[in-house]
Amino acid sequence: MLILGLDPSLTCTGWGVIRVEGPRLTHIANGQVATNAKAPLPERLLHLHDAVIAVIETYQPDRAAAEEVFVNKNPQSTLKLAHARGAVLTACGRMSLTVAEHSSRLVKKAVVGTGAAEKTQVQAMLKVLLPAAKIAGADAADALAVAIADAHLGGSK
Amino acid sequence: MLILGLDPSLTCTGWGVIRVEGPRLTHIANGQVATNAKAPLPERLLHLHDAVIAVIETYQPDRAAAEEVFVNKNPQSTLKLAHARGAVLTACGRMSLTVAEHSSRLVKKAVVGTGAAEKTQVQAMLKVLLPAAKIAGADAADALAVAIADAHLGGSK
Repeated sequence: MLILGLDPSLTCTGWGVIRVEGPRLTHIANGQVATNAKAPLPERLLHLHDAVIAVIETYQPDRAAAEEVFVNKNPQSTLKLAHARGAVLTACGRMSLTVAEHSSRLVKKAVVGTGAAEKTQVQAMLKVLLPAAKIAGADAADALAVAIADAHLGGSK
Repeated sequence: MLILGLDPSLTCTGWGVIRVEGPRLTHIANGQVATNAKAPLPERLLHLHDAVIAVIETYQPDRAAAEEVFVNKNPQSTLKLAHARGAVLTACGRMSLTVAEHSSRLVKKAVVGTGAAEKTQVQAMLKVLLPAAKIAGADAADALAVAIADAHLGGSK
């Protein structure tokens, strides 16, 4: 069973693929898709969409997962995030991939053991859980974390 | 010059195409794309994306326009709107269509003459400006209004 974790963002979308065999997790691949901040919004969204299609075509995951999103203290950046998420989820829809949504708290709890974990703790645990992974950056790390959480949570919300 | 107005929404996205020749506006077509509220989000977004692609392929507009979006008093519905917008703008990006964004105030001002106009006033003016149009519904009306505003504003923000 292959799980694709996604961390959508307009600036840079992270993705990570893991294999789950019973209790065993194996890193398959991860990466980040940056967009040109000077390009028009439709072009940036298309770039994210097409990159996610390419990842799905390459690794053929069985299911996908992303963090739930809420409007936070910066509504303008949440709007940008939701646009990116719309493009990325459209790509998943195109490839008939179901996408589970997990709260940030559940992702941290699944990876570190506590929902109040810091980002650095999550990244440290990733090195333990996926020792073979060369992680492309913070967004790819978040994507791998949500994939791991999805493995634990069985794809359900 | 053909302008495509778009009123993205996850539940029902409105669209409208007008022709602009100097000061003259002509209605070409309008419609609404509803999604199945029980379907998973990626599937709904894909449906909106593909419907907008079909509209663009059919009418070959020269440019597109949509209303600007802000986080309003209902953040959860704004998030849904932004996801839908992400899917719709991805479709515009795919078809190399530029999308101007105009504030709700400017759209009302362009159609009715005042930025504080009511929805009913906008709809009444649409009947005057595009007498031949049989309008598919409130979302299609909003899409035609933003197309008319874009004609007045010359595509610029």
